[in-house]
Amino acid sequence: MPELPPLFERRYNERGAPPGTFVAPESSTPARIRVVHYDAETSNEWEASEPLVLDVERRPGAVLWIDVQGLGDGSALRALAEHFGLHPLAVADAFNVGQRPKADEYDESTFVVLRAAHPDEEGERIDWSQLALFVLDGAVVTVSECVTPCLEPVRQRLRAGASHLRGGGADQLAAVVVDTIVDGYFPALEALGDRLEVLEEQILERPRRDVLRRLYRTKRDLVAFRRATWPLRDALHDVCRAPGPHFTEHVHHELRDTTDHVVQVVDLLESYRELASSLVDVHVSMLGQRTNESVRVLTVVSTIFIPLTFLAGVFGMNFDRSQPGNMPELGLPYGYVAFWALCVALALVLVLVFRRLGWIGAREREPEVE
Amino acid sequence: MPELPPLFERRYNERGAPPGTFVAPESSTPARIRVVHYDAETSNEWEASEPLVLDVERRPGAVLWIDVQGLGDGSALRALAEHFGLHPLAVADAFNVGQRPKADEYDESTFVVLRAAHPDEEGERIDWSQLALFVLDGAVVTVSECVTPCLEPVRQRLRAGASHLRGGGADQLAAVVVDTIVDGYFPALEALGDRLEVLEEQILERPRRDVLRRLYRTKRDLVAFRRATWPLRDALHDVCRAPGPHFTEHVHHELRDTTDHVVQVVDLLESYRELASSLVDVHVSMLGQRTNESVRVLTVVSTIFIPLTFLAGVFGMNFDRSQPGNMPELGLPYGYVAFWALCVALALVLVLVFRRLGWIGAREREPEVE
Amino acid sequence: MPELPPLFERRYNERGAPPGTFVAPESSTPARIRVVHYDAETSNEWEASEPLVLDVERRPGAVLWIDVQGLGDGSALRALAEHFGLHPLAVADAFNVGQRPKADEYDESTFVVLRAAHPDEEGERIDWSQLALFVLDGAVVTVSECVTPCLEPVRQRLRAGASHLRGGGADQLAAVVVDTIVDGYFPALEALGDRLEVLEEQILERPRRDVLRRLYRTKRDLVAFRRATWPLRDALHDVCRAPGPHFTEHVHHELRDTTDHVVQVVDLLESYRELASSLVDVHVSMLGQRTNESVRVLTVVSTIFIPLTFLAGVFGMNFDRSQPGNMPELGLPYGYVAFWALCVALALVLVLVFRRLGWIGAREREPEVE
Amino acid sequence: MPELPPLFERRYNERGAPPGTFVAPESSTPARIRVVHYDAETSNEWEASEPLVLDVERRPGAVLWIDVQGLGDGSALRALAEHFGLHPLAVADAFNVGQRPKADEYDESTFVVLRAAHPDEEGERIDWSQLALFVLDGAVVTVSECVTPCLEPVRQRLRAGASHLRGGGADQLAAVVVDTIVDGYFPALEALGDRLEVLEEQILERPRRDVLRRLYRTKRDLVAFRRATWPLRDALHDVCRAPGPHFTEHVHHELRDTTDHVVQVVDLLESYRELASSLVDVHVSMLGQRTNESVRVLTVVSTIFIPLTFLAGVFGMNFDRSQPGNMPELGLPYGYVAFWALCVALALVLVLVFRRLGWIGAREREPEVE
Amino acid sequence: MPELPPLFERRYNERGAPPGTFVAPESSTPARIRVVHYDAETSNEWEASEPLVLDVERRPGAVLWIDVQGLGDGSALRALAEHFGLHPLAVADAFNVGQRPKADEYDESTFVVLRAAHPDEEGERIDWSQLALFVLDGAVVTVSECVTPCLEPVRQRLRAGASHLRGGGADQLAAVVVDTIVDGYFPALEALGDRLEVLEEQILERPRRDVLRRLYRTKRDLVAFRRATWPLRDALHDVCRAPGPHFTEHVHHELRDTTDHVVQVVDLLESYRELASSLVDVHVSMLGQRTNESVRVLTVVSTIFIPLTFLAGVFGMNFDRSQPGNMPELGLPYGYVAFWALCVALALVLVLVFRRLGWIGAREREPEVE
Repeated sequence: MPELPPLFERRYNERGAPPGTFVAPESSTPARIRVVHYDAETSNEWEASEPLVLDVERRPGAVLWIDVQGLGDGSALRALAEHFGLHPLAVADAFNVGQRPKADEYDESTFVVLRAAHPDEEGERIDWSQLALFVLDGAVVTVSECVTPCLEPVRQRLRAGASHLRGGGADQLAAVVVDTIVDGYFPALEALGDRLEVLEEQILERPRRDVLRRLYRTKRDLVAFRRATWPLRDALHDVCRAPGPHFTEHVHHELRDTTDHVVQVVDLLESYRELASSLVDVHVSMLGQRTNESVRVLTVVSTIFIPLTFLAGVFGMNFDRSQPGNMPELGLPYGYVAFWALCVALALVLVLVFRRLGWIGAREREPEVE
Repeated sequence: MPELPPLFERRYNERGAPPGTFVAPESSTPARIRVVHYDAETSNEWEASEPLVLDVERRPGAVLWIDVQGLGDGSALRALAEHFGLHPLAVADAFNVGQRPKADEYDESTFVVLRAAHPDEEGERIDWSQLALFVLDGAVVTVSECVTPCLEPVRQRLRAGASHLRGGGADQLAAVVVDTIVDGYFPALEALGDRLEVLEEQILERPRRDVLRRLYRTKRDLVAFRRATWPLRDALHDVCRAPGPHFTEHVHHELRDTTDHVVQVVDLLESYRELASSLVDVHVSMLGQRTNESVRVLTVVSTIFIPLTFLAGVFGMNFDRSQPGNMPELGLPYGYVAFWALCVALALVLVLVFRRLGWIGAREREPEVE
Repeated sequence: MPELPPLFERRYNERGAPPGTFVAPESSTPARIRVVHYDAETSNEWEASEPLVLDVERRPGAVLWIDVQGLGDGSALRALAEHFGLHPLAVADAFNVGQRPKADEYDESTFVVLRAAHPDEEGERIDWSQLALFVLDGAVVTVSECVTPCLEPVRQRLRAGASHLRGGGADQLAAVVVDTIVDGYFPALEALGDRLEVLEEQILERPRRDVLRRLYRTKRDLVAFRRATWPLRDALHDVCRAPGPHFTEHVHHELRDTTDHVVQVVDLLESYRELASSLVDVHVSMLGQRTNESVRVLTVVSTIFIPLTFLAGVFGMNFDRSQPGNMPELGLPYGYVAFWALCVALALVLVLVFRRLGWIGAREREPEVE
Repeated sequence: MPELPPLFERRYNERGAPPGTFVAPESSTPARIRVVHYDAETSNEWEASEPLVLDVERRPGAVLWIDVQGLGDGSALRALAEHFGLHPLAVADAFNVGQRPKADEYDESTFVVLRAAHPDEEGERIDWSQLALFVLDGAVVTVSECVTPCLEPVRQRLRAGASHLRGGGADQLAAVVVDTIVDGYFPALEALGDRLEVLEEQILERPRRDVLRRLYRTKRDLVAFRRATWPLRDALHDVCRAPGPHFTEHVHHELRDTTDHVVQVVDLLESYRELASSLVDVHVSMLGQRTNESVRVLTVVSTIFIPLTFLAGVFGMNFDRSQPGNMPELGLPYGYVAFWALCVALALVLVLVFRRLGWIGAREREPEVE
Repeated sequence: MPELPPLFERRYNERGAPPGTFVAPESSTPARIRVVHYDAETSNEWEASEPLVLDVERRPGAVLWIDVQGLGDGSALRALAEHFGLHPLAVADAFNVGQRPKADEYDESTFVVLRAAHPDEEGERIDWSQLALFVLDGAVVTVSECVTPCLEPVRQRLRAGASHLRGGGADQLAAVVVDTIVDGYFPALEALGDRLEVLEEQILERPRRDVLRRLYRTKRDLVAFRRATWPLRDALHDVCRAPGPHFTEHVHHELRDTTDHVVQVVDLLESYRELASSLVDVHVSMLGQRTNESVRVLTVVSTIFIPLTFLAGVFGMNFDRSQPGNMPELGLPYGYVAFWALCVALALVLVLVFRRLGWIGAREREPEVE
């Protein structure tokens, strides 16, 4: 099984440092930067790299999208912050990954933080990365923690020529970016559902030893999933309810639809979580049932044979039969036959008692075997 | 037992595709389309099929109801969307089944998504299908995932001639459709209640081996049921509180009554869920109680007979009695009788000890046997 | 123990039937109808029966109270509905018992649904019946599911002559009816409290075999109780906050007091529920503790005696001592005494080991015996 | 251990009796009545008794505080109700102890119900009594269920001469009374915390047999505590938010501070409750761990010795060695030595198997013993 | 392992004492007092001690920060209260540590209570101390329970010269103080996450005996952590939503950012709490699984060998073979071989039965061993 992702992932600043400062980890790979500049008619797309020089001549009415993939040494982010006048607190949040999804309104931008899901191919592990989104006047800046090109489909739609998206503004692009990330939750959710169905089958029909480990991993993924989606629901709700200067009324329906999808994800997660909890309970009960059956078999066998073994031991004693009163039964004719008769009688009585208690023969009352 | 329904059922679009596009699954059967055109005096009813041609001459004041059963290849839905100008996001939700129940207000329509319950005849499995409802000006479009004619009773009432429904508008029809779906929850709920009562009886009186599997299935059905009804409650509440252009004040009482029924369903589901959880606890406790009893029987029998068997073994040893100190008791007169006396005494003492501990004879204090 | 009441009790209409239609069950007994017509000076009281003819000459300012006990074939309800112009949806709810408690505002009436508690004499079972209440202008109609005269105390107070109640209006009577039903919750609650105290004592001090069955029954009663009171709390709160045309300001204090009582009931129910859950946990732990003790006794006894029995068996073997190397110890003088010494030594060592592990002698550290 | 307090304590009126009537229990002791009449300059204090005669000549601007300790036969309460024109519903609540804490606004008074905590000296039991508080114009009436003088500190502060309290109005006195009762929660809370710490230590380090009983008692006290404080928090919040004619703005800070303390109590109670639940889980797990260890010891010892004992039994059989094929090994030279070699080998193999399974020798991997 | 911190820590006043009085514990060490007086240009910093004399000549526009470390005998706090006119209730809360985090608006100041986290170096224990914060006009007073200089980073930033902080007002300083305390939560949270990951590994892969104790400690720390952060979230939310005279609009973004961090902490705590609960469940299930395996081994071994041992005992009996019918089989040729054949056959049959029951050989179906 793949390793579990870490529980805690925030790279925090030095304590007491002024907000807005951040230190790049030493092993950081340089960020990749994809820029698209488009309006309804034209679309230019190119790649930049650190150090970032922003010398785009912006066409009026056109939208500029700068997609920073990977955090690098933070220089790209710093350059963008300076160029667009981004608020230092928002910039710090974009760099300090592990933020809670949220949508904050600043003077110059609306700042959105989301978490993107990356299920592996076997569906056994889900990784998460942070995507920060600045919606500015006529421009969108996206900063993703990892270099996976999860926004490639958006670029394809931009390239595809005349579309609703190309004619829209910066908020239209931002809404599509958010929707693309949320669409990415469903394959991860499906993988989780498949894992739960496998666990159901294993627990109810064919128990395996590592079922608990798998259940726990699934629960852990559910917890991480919920932490990514629950706050997003509230953040999107707020944006829907009170459209601001950067998210206008034009994208209301799109955002509401995306919010609905997030709520649907949250709903399914709750269901999964409840089923996972039930499965733990069922597993414990199944174990109890099986232990109970084993103990009953042991008790029945022991209770029947232990007295008989004692009897056999008694008649194997070496008391001096020449002395009076010592083991006269050993000398009786057919004493051995009587011994067997006694044993069989004793065993029969005990079997009947156990049957009346329902400890044996209960199988007939339980037609469906495991 | 019937198979469990799948946990995850959303047919999602390709990631990043523009909202409103959808791909029909390959194995889809063509949709059946029932059309009714009625006002207080006249009512015409006919059946259409894909490709759908909408050339109805609509009478002023009359209501047109188009009921699409099954999703087919989506062509009917596309034709309707074009004809009525339905919002592409709503159309996509109607096609992508597995949506969360909701009521969305668009310019041209109010869009409602519900889930219809289909309990099987034995009450052992409940299937769910999605029903999407567009309430337009003078027209209602319903799109159901499955071809089961669950709205037939509504058509019968329309055929039945002069009624409150025939005289009402499109929202009256929509309210009746929603009420009919909600009425369909009660038989499913009754089946669940019956299953719980059977489980109660089995767990408390006559435990069966597959009781846990049945309990888990019931819990799973409760979870699915809740996912269908909980959001519907909120959606209907919202429609009741703020009647819009498509759901007018005229159907306020009907909608409130339907909402009450949904709330009643949700309430009962919560009760069922709590009872199901209690039953798992009781089952685990019962198992613990039974294991405890078995272990006590085993312990009592073993503790009494193991020392006696040891004693019998001792007197069966073959130490050379001609040597001094070796097993003189075997040569005593009535040594064998003394042995038995010792055994009985030992057993009696142990029985008394166990009785004082309450391990034997506790049955008298517990008059009601299992 | 008395049987458990059913989980599901709604007699639902045929699916898709127009709201407001209802079918009487075949075995229904005819309804009893008690009528009171009173004002501050005079009070007339008589009994009617189905078919109901309402030919009362109503005095101005007087209040007419029609109390229908039992649903009968629904003819009385239908007659009342026609006479007073009751809303068909409210009438259907009055007939379809099993409704969730609620208070609905209609044009002609305020419609209240409550559930009345009927604990049996031993306090082992609580039954519930529905009471529907129509508050009209100068008239109150009550429809109770069962024929138990649970509103008799109200009639007695009306008969008692000049009182606050006699001088009040229809809403005053309705408030008193609701208060009487709510007062009836307390004996049921007390019975539940008594049952819990008995269970506490049984589980903590003297466990009985049927304790789980009793606990489960209590939990089930608590669930039903909560379903009856929780929604009532909200309904009464709403009526208190926004007095309408039928419930006027005059009964505000009375209603608030009744609401307080319902809240008190709900609070106690929550406490009971939590204690019942704790009791299940404690019971499971107690069982685990007892099983643990039994297993320890078994392990100690077995571990001590099984090796000894093996030794005794060894010295009972019949190897040919005439051959070299075969069981020379049997021929040693005092070999038997040495055998016993070995046995005692072995047993002592094991006893010491177990004592150090805390498996024996732990009783001294645990002064309070069970 | 002291007895558990009862679960249900409401002395309810006869069903259907008009609200405001109450019947004194037969065994009631007469109420003690303490009266203080004070203003900034003078303070008079005296004791009255039933039947209560209220002939105080009230100085303008002075505050009259009548503190009724014990309910007696209700005559004092009735006299006060008549004298001050208290609302009958409030008076009934003051007499019917077991009310939920609340603050109700009446025309002539604000009526507050609280519950006072009385931990016993060992901290093993917490009793609760009801305190009802009527805040009138220039007068305060307190009615406490028990005769414990829990308001003595307030009287001492009044006697102490010139203080903030002496100069304040009736609401100032009422706020101080409420604060004094709330201050009394902390010693009870501390006793509960101490009990939980003892239980932690017992469960984690030195398990005792009665630990479950103690845990359950603690849980029960927590439930009762929460029932006393949770509603009080809401009631005080409401009074803070909307100061009325009897609780004026002047005591806003005092009331908010008291509310904060109640919230702090509620918070701590929640923490305690969660820890108590965790302790039950830990206890069950510990028991499972111990049972598991016992069973392993039993299984290891049995599995090693049972086959050996069988072997010894075999070689102790009395087959007639003169017949062919019967037990030739008994006649072999050194057969006995071979037997022992076989036994030791078998035992060694089994020990190695168990060690590989981790059933023996696991202790080395677990350095910290219990 | 380090000792657990106490559950209850409030030093409460004498019951009924006027609010605002407090008694210093006898063993208190004197408080250390650090004073900073700064504006954008100059910054003076010095240390004071009890008795505190406040003779600062305040520059207009400059901010005075008095940081009291340790409570001492309360004289410093009293002097400050007098000098700044602090509300006695707030002063009492600053002295009575163990307060719930809150933000209260007084006339002269905004009073904030927080709890600072102090994880020890091994991350095995988290201590908490209270920090009280008075935001006045142009001055900030901080009173911390312990003498740890947790606000040293703030002083360093003040010393660092021209900065956003130096140019800001008293509320800017207060916001930075709060942010510094909240930043201190993350290392504690990381330590908890690390502990949980170690526990995960121990429970799922290599169970240790003290795992339950560690789990419980972690749960306890989570409970304490939540008590520190949950109310802080609400308090900061309130301050953000309604900036008052002391916390102005200027620090809105900073406070919102700090609030976001607190919410992030609360979110992670919830996740940790759920995982810790899951781990307890998994541990119990693992124990059940292991006990079940042990019992099965015992049952299989016993069930196979107990009848065989009985048989061997039978043939070791000493019935007098000269009498008719007594043990003729002992005299048969090859009787001993037949005995062995019988034993092997019996054992084989039982092995096959157990294999069909899945009690043996199940390992093949469970490829992944523990």
